[in-house]
Amino acid sequence: CGGLSSQVLGLGAVVLTGVWMGRYRGGFAWDGSEQEFNLHPLCMVLGLVFLQGDAILVYRVFRNEAKRSVKLLHGVVHLLALIVTIVGVVAVFDFHRASHIPSMYSLHSWCGMATVVLFCLQWVLGLMFFLFPVASSWLRGVYLPLHVFCGVLLLVMSIGSCLLGITERLLFTIMATYSHLPPEGALANVLGVTLLCFGILVISIITKEEFRRPPNPEEEALSVHFKTLTEGACSPTP
Amino acid sequence: CGGLSSQVLGLGAVVLTGVWMGRYRGGFAWDGSEQEFNLHPLCMVLGLVFLQGDAILVYRVFRNEAKRSVKLLHGVVHLLALIVTIVGVVAVFDFHRASHIPSMYSLHSWCGMATVVLFCLQWVLGLMFFLFPVASSWLRGVYLPLHVFCGVLLLVMSIGSCLLGITERLLFTIMATYSHLPPEGALANVLGVTLLCFGILVISIITKEEFRRPPNPEEEALSVHFKTLTEGACSPTP
Repeated sequence: CGGLSSQVLGLGAVVLTGVWMGRYRGGFAWDGSEQEFNLHPLCMVLGLVFLQGDAILVYRVFRNEAKRSVKLLHGVVHLLALIVTIVGVVAVFDFHRASHIPSMYSLHSWCGMATVVLFCLQWVLGLMFFLFPVASSWLRGVYLPLHVFCGVLLLVMSIGSCLLGITERLLFTIMATYSHLPPEGALANVLGVTLLCFGILVISIITKEEFRRPPNPEEEALSVHFKTLTEGACSPTP
Repeated sequence: CGGLSSQVLGLGAVVLTGVWMGRYRGGFAWDGSEQEFNLHPLCMVLGLVFLQGDAILVYRVFRNEAKRSVKLLHGVVHLLALIVTIVGVVAVFDFHRASHIPSMYSLHSWCGMATVVLFCLQWVLGLMFFLFPVASSWLRGVYLPLHVFCGVLLLVMSIGSCLLGITERLLFTIMATYSHLPPEGALANVLGVTLLCFGILVISIITKEEFRRPPNPEEEALSVHFKTLTEGACSPTP
């Protein structure tokens, strides 16, 4: 039920962004115009929020599947999220360059860039620590709580940055009429609330004990065996 | 160390807000003018973020003191936070009324109002459930995780609403020069980042297992005894 609601809210946010940019802001293009800018909000809501949220949720939704498959799916959905996010970042920088608008001055850009950099770092470290046998079992154990904390932080910062972006965009385009709450303003506000609800729901699902992966002694034993083998083969230091 | 850093960041945010409003926005007053509005950011950063964060932290800082005293301190600091917050909300509504500016249309106002309403509700429920012997032991146990989740959510929503407010204020006042990042813009951006860091630090402190209150069997026994007495006296249902 929570899983389904999260998908409705997440997809709803993507659709609302599409409608806002498509219906009220002139649609999409890749030519340095405002239509190229319009790809920025769409990619950020799709990649940084919806796909990133779903990548986190796979550990709860598929909690009874083989751990290695779920881990792989977690990494792949995050990779998709990362690609879409990078397209969104390129779109806004390219639009700024073509229109001679400065970049990286606003609080939205500072928070957004910090989020994207942390996201890239988290993905690379996650890949090295948990999918490739680079880190020792001890190091994995130390990094895991930090990886989880940063994952939740990233989702929160992503949604916060989107809300800052929505406010910026509204004030740059409809400041004169925003206080009368025209349809475009109401739609963008509803988008912000939808993103907030998506975040609250995803985080409430992943912090609920009953949705956690049940401990599997056989898997643990295999995993330790695999780690021991790996450590023996790759890392000569204890 | 984390506790000290959190106080530096929290007080730093309050000072930055005071400097922004005092030095660049004409100071403070209570006369329906922009100077009355200036109390809004100051009260929100002080009450909703700094005091609320500290009220959460008392459970970790005083983790070895008597539970009832810490609970009382938690409630009192939250009451202070609530009073300062309400002054801040009244300031902005009073300024809007005097200047004939509509209220409650922006995403900032929607998120901010949701935060303030949730804060009031959380405070009243917390008082009834945990300080007054109204709820049964079973009901307390059910409500506690929700109280903790909503407390963290409230801090996150408070900081998010402040960041939205900073963005709004900057675009309403210095939109023409913001892209050249004048001192006022840089100061407000730094305020936003400081609030973000305060939130990350507070939440990282409260989610660390080692800072949790150590279990005290004697206290637990007393507490259960107290609850049993209370339930017997107040709630006839099992």
